[in-house]
Amino acid sequence: MSAGTGRVLAAEFIGTAFLLATVVGSGIMAERLAGGNVAIALLGNAIPTGAILYVLITALGPISGAHFNPAVTLAFMLRREIAPRRAAAYAAVQIVGALVGVWAAHAMFDMTLWQVSDTARSSSGQWLAEGVATFGLVFTILMVVRVRPDAVAASVGLYITAAYWFTASTSFANPAVTIARSFTDTFSGIDPAHMPAFVVCQLIAAIVAWLVAGWLAGENRG
Amino acid sequence: MSAGTGRVLAAEFIGTAFLLATVVGSGIMAERLAGGNVAIALLGNAIPTGAILYVLITALGPISGAHFNPAVTLAFMLRREIAPRRAAAYAAVQIVGALVGVWAAHAMFDMTLWQVSDTARSSSGQWLAEGVATFGLVFTILMVVRVRPDAVAASVGLYITAAYWFTASTSFANPAVTIARSFTDTFSGIDPAHMPAFVVCQLIAAIVAWLVAGWLAGENRG
Amino acid sequence: MSAGTGRVLAAEFIGTAFLLATVVGSGIMAERLAGGNVAIALLGNAIPTGAILYVLITALGPISGAHFNPAVTLAFMLRREIAPRRAAAYAAVQIVGALVGVWAAHAMFDMTLWQVSDTARSSSGQWLAEGVATFGLVFTILMVVRVRPDAVAASVGLYITAAYWFTASTSFANPAVTIARSFTDTFSGIDPAHMPAFVVCQLIAAIVAWLVAGWLAGENRG
Amino acid sequence: MSAGTGRVLAAEFIGTAFLLATVVGSGIMAERLAGGNVAIALLGNAIPTGAILYVLITALGPISGAHFNPAVTLAFMLRREIAPRRAAAYAAVQIVGALVGVWAAHAMFDMTLWQVSDTARSSSGQWLAEGVATFGLVFTILMVVRVRPDAVAASVGLYITAAYWFTASTSFANPAVTIARSFTDTFSGIDPAHMPAFVVCQLIAAIVAWLVAGWLAGENRG
Repeated sequence: MSAGTGRVLAAEFIGTAFLLATVVGSGIMAERLAGGNVAIALLGNAIPTGAILYVLITALGPISGAHFNPAVTLAFMLRREIAPRRAAAYAAVQIVGALVGVWAAHAMFDMTLWQVSDTARSSSGQWLAEGVATFGLVFTILMVVRVRPDAVAASVGLYITAAYWFTASTSFANPAVTIARSFTDTFSGIDPAHMPAFVVCQLIAAIVAWLVAGWLAGENRG
Repeated sequence: MSAGTGRVLAAEFIGTAFLLATVVGSGIMAERLAGGNVAIALLGNAIPTGAILYVLITALGPISGAHFNPAVTLAFMLRREIAPRRAAAYAAVQIVGALVGVWAAHAMFDMTLWQVSDTARSSSGQWLAEGVATFGLVFTILMVVRVRPDAVAASVGLYITAAYWFTASTSFANPAVTIARSFTDTFSGIDPAHMPAFVVCQLIAAIVAWLVAGWLAGENRG
Repeated sequence: MSAGTGRVLAAEFIGTAFLLATVVGSGIMAERLAGGNVAIALLGNAIPTGAILYVLITALGPISGAHFNPAVTLAFMLRREIAPRRAAAYAAVQIVGALVGVWAAHAMFDMTLWQVSDTARSSSGQWLAEGVATFGLVFTILMVVRVRPDAVAASVGLYITAAYWFTASTSFANPAVTIARSFTDTFSGIDPAHMPAFVVCQLIAAIVAWLVAGWLAGENRG
Repeated sequence: MSAGTGRVLAAEFIGTAFLLATVVGSGIMAERLAGGNVAIALLGNAIPTGAILYVLITALGPISGAHFNPAVTLAFMLRREIAPRRAAAYAAVQIVGALVGVWAAHAMFDMTLWQVSDTARSSSGQWLAEGVATFGLVFTILMVVRVRPDAVAASVGLYITAAYWFTASTSFANPAVTIARSFTDTFSGIDPAHMPAFVVCQLIAAIVAWLVAGWLAGENRG
């Protein structure tokens, strides 16, 4: 593996780790402080997550493309902008980075590192929500990157801020995030038994988004 | 209908559907979580709506102009930038997309798809509010698109975030949105009997905004 | 008065009216909904005000410079970028527009148009706060307009969002706003007897900001 | 000291003073109004702080680079973009400016100027949090300034908004801020006895961020 590849994967690692530290850490902080008002806690979880996505994509986009998300990497692989071998490396590093981010959040809040969630997130509505959320995320990225690449960071940050609220699942929309969040027994957790269904819905939605965005942008003959 | 037109209308459909899924979905989420504090619920409704508008206009603007709103389409028709026939198709697709978005929100939250609102929204103050809100929205778009087209997305998103709070009606400002929101019996609903007055005020305000913006920009002799 | 001047003053009128409709309207909405939690009400007042400032400056800046504020107009007069005669017309139109905006807010919320505030805002801390707030606002505008004119709208919007929170007076920072807010007996009001001291502090602070910004930018010999 | 240097240091002074007036002032306001709900108070503290950072960096970046933070100045000194002598002057002025900002906040809220905090902030989790927070801040600045200098202001503002929530310490991430916040016995204070450990963690994290960012950007051979 060349030094170049090492740097690229390090960027994906750092970005996904910070993303998860933010998702899980702000969830812990928000729940601790919100005095039982879950809407305030969700504001305190959604605003930081959207904000850090803008920052991480702006800072690391020029190095690795700033995917931080196997569903996004899958879409770029389908577009042949990343080779399957490298896509697999991206996904592996994203998952490891996500776990490290969760553990960093636990450490910062003086909690046990190793946790397993028992938060139930399983219903046909939530599966649809993950499909809608991931479709919207991947569709947004593919459409914006074509015409205003400098607006991708703001678009993704604001999309996720919105999606935390308009989807019944609070929008995981990311297999690495979903896997990692099954290892935190805090505000943002998901029971590991309910995780695979989320991941399947996310990957299917990414493929659909790739098809629709390609047609809409006129890249395939309509 | 050419493939080009199909894509353009699909963009209006997808955008308006996501807009309504966000308005209605975040309203459901916000009301469920806010523990009766309506100001917190409105924050949880206004911030996502503003955010998704930025995203949708950035992503779909290059395809269809990203109107998502018959009042906006009317203003561009008056400016002769869209032909009446196409404007009618836009409006039809916007209304259908809006309804699909409402139903998607219901499905994601495991609710009955078909609902009718009984939320009363009927007073001279609210009609004035819809006039002010829609005047401001259409005026903003017409002024900004001339001089800083890349700032339209942020302007519309922030305008609606503000208008949720400063208008007594929480600013529908969009006939497709108004029609669709009469079919949800949740936070963001409006009794269908009170819907037509809102739509009339919105369309009149769009015409006034077109006149004022045209004069102010010096496009007609002042 | 030429048609050109008419348009310029109309832009100042519309902008200041929308600014006050937002400040007062969102204050009414926020107080009604917040259930007595004033911090939530202030969020519901500060976020819309910052958002509408971005919108109005982006939309109307190319027409009139988008001052909406006699203290800002004073600073540009001191920089000899606007003649005293026109500056006086700006200030007059800003004050009238501000009053119309207040009345529009009252009308939208089905309230009596003519109101007088009895909210006490009078202490040495609050006068200092108005000085600091206005210094910061005018200083920001003068510094940013030189080097990144396209960032003035975001800078002013975010500055005021912050200043609502960090100043004891919630940052009026604008004589037209201060005068108009003495005519609303709602969340954002100020007793007319306490208004003149605010205006004096604001005008002095604008002069100081002009001096400091001129020196810092190296426009006068340091 | 030439007039040029005087202006540069004045910019660091003004910026750091406004930063602290915002951090401490919005903390006082938020705590007073939030009725005991600390999550709402933290929103009312984090949003203004992020907002003012965007404003101050946009306004003063062209004059002094807008560090406002000895840890940031240290990183630019390590990159040999600022000489050690000037870096020391920056740090001194930042600390004095920060103290003046704290006292301005106290004066605006009619409080005693001289205060000492007794808020305990001392745990291995909080030290790790300061390390993570400062690493992320300095890393973000170094990465973004290379490729999108006009996005530094938004990146820093949004990073700090997020970091208030995802770090257990609410992210001081700045030695001048930390020293100054030990002299306010309000929401944002820190016991002076716990201050040095924070500063040490911040300076170490700045060095690590310099190393990682340099390697990732390919400036050293990887």
